[in-house]
Amino acid sequence: MNASVLLTDLYQLTMLQGYWHERMAETAVFELFVRKLPPRRNFLVAAGLEQALDYLENLRFTAAELDYLQRTGFFDDGFLATLENFRFEGDVDAMPEGTVFFPDEPILRVTAPLPQAQLVETRLINLLQFQTLIASKAVRCVLAAPGKRLVDFGLRRAHGSEAGLLAARAAYLAGFIGTSNVLAGQRFDIPIFGTMAHSYIMAHDDELTAFRGFARSQPHNVVLLIDTYDTLKAVDKIVALARELAEDDIRIKAVRIDSGDLGELARQVRARLDAAGWSEIGIFASGDLDEYRLAELRAAPIDGFGIGTRLTTSSDAPYLNCAYKLQEYAGIPRRKVSKGKQTWPGAKQVYRHYDPAGRFDHDVLTTADDHLEGQALLQPVMRQGKRLQPPESLTGIRDRIVAQLERLPEALKNIDSSATYPVEISPALRRLTEETDRCLGLA
Amino acid sequence: MNASVLLTDLYQLTMLQGYWHERMAETAVFELFVRKLPPRRNFLVAAGLEQALDYLENLRFTAAELDYLQRTGFFDDGFLATLENFRFEGDVDAMPEGTVFFPDEPILRVTAPLPQAQLVETRLINLLQFQTLIASKAVRCVLAAPGKRLVDFGLRRAHGSEAGLLAARAAYLAGFIGTSNVLAGQRFDIPIFGTMAHSYIMAHDDELTAFRGFARSQPHNVVLLIDTYDTLKAVDKIVALARELAEDDIRIKAVRIDSGDLGELARQVRARLDAAGWSEIGIFASGDLDEYRLAELRAAPIDGFGIGTRLTTSSDAPYLNCAYKLQEYAGIPRRKVSKGKQTWPGAKQVYRHYDPAGRFDHDVLTTADDHLEGQALLQPVMRQGKRLQPPESLTGIRDRIVAQLERLPEALKNIDSSATYPVEISPALRRLTEETDRCLGLA
Repeated sequence: MNASVLLTDLYQLTMLQGYWHERMAETAVFELFVRKLPPRRNFLVAAGLEQALDYLENLRFTAAELDYLQRTGFFDDGFLATLENFRFEGDVDAMPEGTVFFPDEPILRVTAPLPQAQLVETRLINLLQFQTLIASKAVRCVLAAPGKRLVDFGLRRAHGSEAGLLAARAAYLAGFIGTSNVLAGQRFDIPIFGTMAHSYIMAHDDELTAFRGFARSQPHNVVLLIDTYDTLKAVDKIVALARELAEDDIRIKAVRIDSGDLGELARQVRARLDAAGWSEIGIFASGDLDEYRLAELRAAPIDGFGIGTRLTTSSDAPYLNCAYKLQEYAGIPRRKVSKGKQTWPGAKQVYRHYDPAGRFDHDVLTTADDHLEGQALLQPVMRQGKRLQPPESLTGIRDRIVAQLERLPEALKNIDSSATYPVEISPALRRLTEETDRCLGLA
Repeated sequence: MNASVLLTDLYQLTMLQGYWHERMAETAVFELFVRKLPPRRNFLVAAGLEQALDYLENLRFTAAELDYLQRTGFFDDGFLATLENFRFEGDVDAMPEGTVFFPDEPILRVTAPLPQAQLVETRLINLLQFQTLIASKAVRCVLAAPGKRLVDFGLRRAHGSEAGLLAARAAYLAGFIGTSNVLAGQRFDIPIFGTMAHSYIMAHDDELTAFRGFARSQPHNVVLLIDTYDTLKAVDKIVALARELAEDDIRIKAVRIDSGDLGELARQVRARLDAAGWSEIGIFASGDLDEYRLAELRAAPIDGFGIGTRLTTSSDAPYLNCAYKLQEYAGIPRRKVSKGKQTWPGAKQVYRHYDPAGRFDHDVLTTADDHLEGQALLQPVMRQGKRLQPPESLTGIRDRIVAQLERLPEALKNIDSSATYPVEISPALRRLTEETDRCLGLA
């Protein structure tokens, strides 16, 4: 997972050279947050912290990288020499992965000497925005298909290798039962799923031979794809084969439908299988699915779904309007006031309040040193460049998401309509903002 | 760039096990093509072949990977033993990178023993669909902003590291002048660009000090970001600083505006700079840009643009409806007839015809053995697992795209309205399709 330290924007390095010439290495506080929810999203789910911490712990420049930087002509040798021993030695506070959050709430805060906090901006956003995007999309699929088994099928149209890998992780965190992505299985110990494509059927001279060959080849993993030629005719072959295989104690677990009117086909397939006494054979569906299609298919007799492209690209909202902003430098709060991009200054904390039934009631955004009632969402995760805890288990994060969805107000869980969750700004943060504006000459 | 061979869907491996049990290793032909253009696209530009060939040449299973597969419980030891020496030893024919193409036209054809041609499906799609998607989006930006300098700024919101890297490459092929992505600079020798973020300004106690510090730190790369507080007031500081720096022969190349009404601000900034005698200072703009915004800003006095998120996510169309399909096995043409997903059978070739003025006139899709007039678009690129040529230079691909855009009918270049380019199906391909359907019992 560790990418090169050069996986960053050039301006991070030119700024570092500026800071070096100007001897600016006091402590800076940066926070990563989402400015605005994408359309039809009522909340987001934080994900990707594990990869972000791994990146920070392993950040260093190799000789080949420094050599390349030297050749670009942008940098002084004196500055490049300072990068030889460059390490991230700062502090990180963050919401645990799987935390539900809302706009303007920091999900990660970096406190470090300015150059260290600056350099890591690009990759931190790159890692956190993508997994948060996909975990949030996947949670919507889970909400749209209660009781159904969902599997990530999206690697092929994910944007490159890392997107496929991290999308599989994010979807699993959100409640998917697994992925088709074998590498994600190996790296993250996520259950993997898969049987056959249309090419398998097409490579055989007839469909029944293909079904039989597959079932006898791997008798414990028999899910047969039935829509290559004529879905309903294929069911008759399945029924005949099921009888034959039963004699050898081989069980057809399910059939898969990947095209056509999935709901209507599933009803007809279910009826034929049941009429033939094969109600134990399940139905799995795939093809152009997302949370909206899943909601439409809720009543169909489909046991599980493979969700691909629209999940791993978050196709209806392929990015988050997020930022990693300087909030404080050398003890002085900072604030950007560019039109439409104003930020709340200073290091911040988020407190969550619950109603008597245990449901989310409202959040309060305040300064980090303002200790309020409620549950503090940002927790210390790294001090002086070292993690405070070992990596969290994916199971632990999955459980956290389940628990949070149970406590989330119903209106926020609607995948079609928008509802706003109250995030209050504390008096302390309002005071700090006014003071900051006064210092900047803006008030 | 080489990803693990496990970066694939599990079903590729379960199918391979089936093929092994059934002794199916005859020659297969698979083709990769796009079924349908995304909304508002009139053509696509092929990209990613270099990475695809690199993947095929280096495909192998490590001991650790085989050990993981063994532990999954899906596979026989006998089958896994066959993977130890697994290599891709097939042939590849493909459109050169930068070729303009249309739906149903194969951009890549793999001819190899069935297991080899099958296993590579997932990663070939993963590599080719993403770069083709981004190159096609980037070409639209280039068409929308003639004469402007475009730079890729999209790494942070690209979907992971590889997406950021390959998007920088694809945008450069399409005519961008470079990228902010330092790793893309190192790996692909793409020009890199970057100066400062708002955090640089905000870390200083006042804006003018930040401007001066940066300019004196790197006097050959002075582009100053002027929208952190008040864009027009910042121009007055730029003018004062330009005079001061001129005494030391330091030149301010440009100012950058990243928020607000970019067109209106650029006009006001331009007027102020010109009035003060600094017409040599350029204006660079960034922030939520794509081809549609670029078209709106065509008349604004902006010399260059940084295009980020909407480019590297191809946000209005974040995926292509593409497929990699079995077209022939053991000498017999194959065809998928699933509803809405029918394919043309057999190994195919595309011939392009030009009008007397040298413009694209129409394409003909035919069988690979049907030698027609016109320019054959698929060329041999790999035989028996070895490349036939060294990697093509990015400059060569850039030139190809420029040349193709000159020959493309004007109607297809419109970024808003749709126009259809004629792709004819040859008599030979129609005959083959009828024969195939007859053999499948479909006609």
